[in-house]
Amino acid sequence: MSYNVTQKLIKDHLVEGEMKPGAEIGLTIDQTLTQDATGTMVMLELEAMGIDRAKTEASAQYVDHNLIQEDSKNPDDHLFLESAAKKFGLYYSRPGNGVSHPVHMQRLARPGKTLLGSDSHTCANGCMGMLAIGAGGIDVAMAIAGEPFHVKMPKVWGVKVTGELPEWVSAKDAILEMLRRHGVKGGVNHVFEYYGPGLENLTAMDRHVIANMGAELGATGTVFPSDEETKRYMTEEGRGDEWIELKPDEGAEYDRHDEINLSELVPMIAKPSSPGNVVPVSEVEGESIYQSYIGSSANPGFRDFAIASKIVEGRHIAEGISLDLNPTSRQMLIDLSKHGHIANFLQAGARLHQAGCNGCIGMGQAPATGRNSLRTTPRNFPGRSGTKEDSVFLCSPETAAVSALFGKITDPRNAGFDYPKVEMPEEPTVDAQLLDLPVSEEEAKNYELVKGPNIASIPKMDELPNDMELPVLLKMGNDISTDEILAGGARVLPYRSNLPEISKFTFEIVDETYYDRAMDSRDDGGHAVVGGTNYGQGSSREHAALAPRFLGMKVAIVQDFARIHWQNLANFGVLPLTFVNESDWDEISQGDTLIFTGLRDKIHEGNQLEVEVKGKDKKIKVEHALSERQIEIMETGGLINWVKDRLNQ
Amino acid sequence: MSYNVTQKLIKDHLVEGEMKPGAEIGLTIDQTLTQDATGTMVMLELEAMGIDRAKTEASAQYVDHNLIQEDSKNPDDHLFLESAAKKFGLYYSRPGNGVSHPVHMQRLARPGKTLLGSDSHTCANGCMGMLAIGAGGIDVAMAIAGEPFHVKMPKVWGVKVTGELPEWVSAKDAILEMLRRHGVKGGVNHVFEYYGPGLENLTAMDRHVIANMGAELGATGTVFPSDEETKRYMTEEGRGDEWIELKPDEGAEYDRHDEINLSELVPMIAKPSSPGNVVPVSEVEGESIYQSYIGSSANPGFRDFAIASKIVEGRHIAEGISLDLNPTSRQMLIDLSKHGHIANFLQAGARLHQAGCNGCIGMGQAPATGRNSLRTTPRNFPGRSGTKEDSVFLCSPETAAVSALFGKITDPRNAGFDYPKVEMPEEPTVDAQLLDLPVSEEEAKNYELVKGPNIASIPKMDELPNDMELPVLLKMGNDISTDEILAGGARVLPYRSNLPEISKFTFEIVDETYYDRAMDSRDDGGHAVVGGTNYGQGSSREHAALAPRFLGMKVAIVQDFARIHWQNLANFGVLPLTFVNESDWDEISQGDTLIFTGLRDKIHEGNQLEVEVKGKDKKIKVEHALSERQIEIMETGGLINWVKDRLNQ
Repeated sequence: MSYNVTQKLIKDHLVEGEMKPGAEIGLTIDQTLTQDATGTMVMLELEAMGIDRAKTEASAQYVDHNLIQEDSKNPDDHLFLESAAKKFGLYYSRPGNGVSHPVHMQRLARPGKTLLGSDSHTCANGCMGMLAIGAGGIDVAMAIAGEPFHVKMPKVWGVKVTGELPEWVSAKDAILEMLRRHGVKGGVNHVFEYYGPGLENLTAMDRHVIANMGAELGATGTVFPSDEETKRYMTEEGRGDEWIELKPDEGAEYDRHDEINLSELVPMIAKPSSPGNVVPVSEVEGESIYQSYIGSSANPGFRDFAIASKIVEGRHIAEGISLDLNPTSRQMLIDLSKHGHIANFLQAGARLHQAGCNGCIGMGQAPATGRNSLRTTPRNFPGRSGTKEDSVFLCSPETAAVSALFGKITDPRNAGFDYPKVEMPEEPTVDAQLLDLPVSEEEAKNYELVKGPNIASIPKMDELPNDMELPVLLKMGNDISTDEILAGGARVLPYRSNLPEISKFTFEIVDETYYDRAMDSRDDGGHAVVGGTNYGQGSSREHAALAPRFLGMKVAIVQDFARIHWQNLANFGVLPLTFVNESDWDEISQGDTLIFTGLRDKIHEGNQLEVEVKGKDKKIKVEHALSERQIEIMETGGLINWVKDRLNQ
Repeated sequence: MSYNVTQKLIKDHLVEGEMKPGAEIGLTIDQTLTQDATGTMVMLELEAMGIDRAKTEASAQYVDHNLIQEDSKNPDDHLFLESAAKKFGLYYSRPGNGVSHPVHMQRLARPGKTLLGSDSHTCANGCMGMLAIGAGGIDVAMAIAGEPFHVKMPKVWGVKVTGELPEWVSAKDAILEMLRRHGVKGGVNHVFEYYGPGLENLTAMDRHVIANMGAELGATGTVFPSDEETKRYMTEEGRGDEWIELKPDEGAEYDRHDEINLSELVPMIAKPSSPGNVVPVSEVEGESIYQSYIGSSANPGFRDFAIASKIVEGRHIAEGISLDLNPTSRQMLIDLSKHGHIANFLQAGARLHQAGCNGCIGMGQAPATGRNSLRTTPRNFPGRSGTKEDSVFLCSPETAAVSALFGKITDPRNAGFDYPKVEMPEEPTVDAQLLDLPVSEEEAKNYELVKGPNIASIPKMDELPNDMELPVLLKMGNDISTDEILAGGARVLPYRSNLPEISKFTFEIVDETYYDRAMDSRDDGGHAVVGGTNYGQGSSREHAALAPRFLGMKVAIVQDFARIHWQNLANFGVLPLTFVNESDWDEISQGDTLIFTGLRDKIHEGNQLEVEVKGKDKKIKVEHALSERQIEIMETGGLINWVKDRLNQ
């Protein structure tokens, strides 16, 4: 049988399930990537699971998100992550080394491997012939612990690439064209696999640009083959010996088909406020801008900066424009400086920021109220820049640089001068020592987790009891979002590594008295909540399940759950139940007590069970959608306990 | 008569008073400097005064403090300041251009001139043969409006400089030695004037280092002569034609004397948590560090960075160390990049931040809890780094760089290698276009102030009434600080450009009900407060007077005032009174009503007046310490009204 690259990668890592699109499969994970915003909780989960050492081939902890050190919280998190890297045998990338995705590509990415990362742009490393998937923190913790990762077998969408990029057009325009065609949900449950003769004209870094924003298509992943260009790149990085070829078999098939002719592409732009809102730049030409922003993991390469530098060289940005440079790795920044590009940018009037995620994830560089910001970043969701009601456009470095010169959105082909030639460094800097290596298992024993005052271990969670009497502390209506369960933002997120502290904000928006009442319930057997439809919509944040759980929530009964929150509740040991009869929602009032008897037998026996409303002579039918594996996890009190138990067997 | 340089500068600008140490003098101000943290209020004050255009020779608005753009507030402030610069005829230095002090030195400083700045390190430009003084915002607003600046005639402390700096020792060690000798209050009411043969061995930038930290000595200013080195520097900056010589007369005398022999200096360090806590580095050698931080206006020159770069060149910082680079001007950063120093730093493992004040004023780069931070910045007051209970040491770039290599505080003379030689650029970059020039008076008419949603004009303040019945809304004890009157910090300061909003925090720490009660009083004739001794101690922030004034406070009666707050109250039209008989404090209760009759005549008649406590048959003697000028200001409702009236005459 002939396989495409995606199928080969899956086949080589399949440990559970069948390769039928839509079926759940279990994959072994070779590499993991965590960043600091999600990583602190992953490390605390490893601690709670009792993991001694990563079981993966390579796991790397990057510090790239929270680089702004206004007080001790972020630097304390960095030290904690550094100590966790030592203790668990992880690579550690210091603050200032750059964004996880390009640094991982430089130092650790290997064709033929799987990579799971607690960052949605993990897919970027699919450019290297890897199956690279973004996931929740606990999923990555499990992978580090050696457990397989469960995911729906994706369909593979083959994209045949032909032609060659014209002047003033670059890889960013190719992925923006894909987003124009398919929108932000077009790729759900698919892996995009690029193939064809045009790949010869896309460098490894160009492929990174395309793979990175596969996340914006909603795709499970993006896969490029590992070819001569991959070999060239790895050789340049001093890792030529780690290269293997990985190409689709002759006659390989795809579930769906698309084609992109690079020669026909024109400069594209995503208008506010969705990466799917794409038009040719010419359609919005002339709109005034306030900010032009170059960099991020969506345009991380030397070329991406160098072309912009050559465009502004000897010129000056328009008055009133903030040209923000967001370097993506220290290694690349060294070369940009050595080859005169940093001086070019500065002389043109740019602001140079440290290497990291920065404004791409709303950590600095927010635009002024009501002003247009032009960015090479991957996302322009409303408010993501940090400014409420912002107006962010996404484009290529060429478009961003030319527009900065004119002070308005400009099709770079109308720059009025020749497309500059970028000379790539003959001997690019390779600076392996900037990524701290894992220490030996023996040496790791000398390390303890370094916990600043704002970092707290995850407390032990109790098992699911067989019999429970649970007061209903909250009865809620429809569409309760995870933001209402546990808000995000600058007030709450600094406590992300401190479950007892962050729990104080739980359901604050719904009912300020919840926290105190929940704390009381906790010592008394816990509590339940009742909700309507689409319960737990919005952000995937794990804390929205972990915090209520910490406060004693045992059961949530709702009309239906948003998918990811349902998964998070199950992972952390809160039993997610739905009403069998919609109207039974009316039968339960806040303050009622629900009686569960023989629960642990009943959830095995079938999907449905009965709950008694105390003193009301009323039994209510509810059901769960847990698999046998999930029931087992639920019984132990959640994934952390489940892994811990297995390790102690 | 023979004059020293300080006396010459004062004599040339004297418009009121006599040059007797301790007497109040009025000086014309040639140049002003405002930064963004204090500047927004200065611009709002200019607007409220009805000023059309700056009357100074050169006034510059810098954006260097609040560069972290986590939401729209800071970028909105930047746009506001840019529009104010256009409207009022100011130079405008964009975010990313660098710290006000070195940029002002590069582009605008002129020997023989006076400079008033709303930043305590304004004194740095005393290195250029100027009288450069830091002051409150409203003082600078007055100077921009063409009003003289009033200050106590300082004593002049002559410091004879001899010898030459040894290897591994630099200008920072000289000013640290001065701080070791005289402490943080030693210079109060003095100007330090440096002279003597050793000046030949100090560059203009070395002198900047010394003048900058004159602020830490508590001095009114620091003055260097304008000599051949000043000429060389200005010529290098393309401004040789603006140079004049300014030297002490033969036989000039000083009020006090000191001498510093550069040849005898050793590397010095200020221990936590005061810049006056200075010892030789050798005394603390071996203490482990977590962070080494190079830059800020206390070490802003090319040499300061280049020597550190040469020290770390081809080496690597110790594991776990954060080497933070804080470039001070874009112009200098260009040269550092062109000459390979940025690449050196990055290869050694440094984090490169944008040009600006950054961590020096607690905007980023805060150290982790309990870890030692070694900095070339001017101040290490507790918590200034952003981290509570921090541990910050101040030192030279040489000490910071060598210590970063070893991971512990190291006397740089023990580096174990030769003192590197720094080559200064043969043709240093001069990039005048990065500082936006003032527009013409004609063109300025096209500009309106751009006010984002968080920027509000200062409302019109009413005159001092002749007869008042004022409820006492608060009765307070001793030592009420301006932090208790109006807190600082990240929760409150973002509203610094919005008086109605920031006022909501007034006296919040003392009594949460104050704001509502004060707002009620406002429409009803206002209110008074009563306090004990040392009322208004602490930070000089103007908002602590302006906000209560906005809320209707007319009078504060206390045992005695802290000096600056007293001045601020007088400036903003709150009558500051003290009890003649200490025990009368007991006679007034919160909730009493105070009756003032014929007030405007009485404050002219003498310093004492009587206040009646309504319904208590009790009259209380109080007194004021206002000069005739201040009484006049008080009557019009404060400085803003006073200037406005004069302009309309």
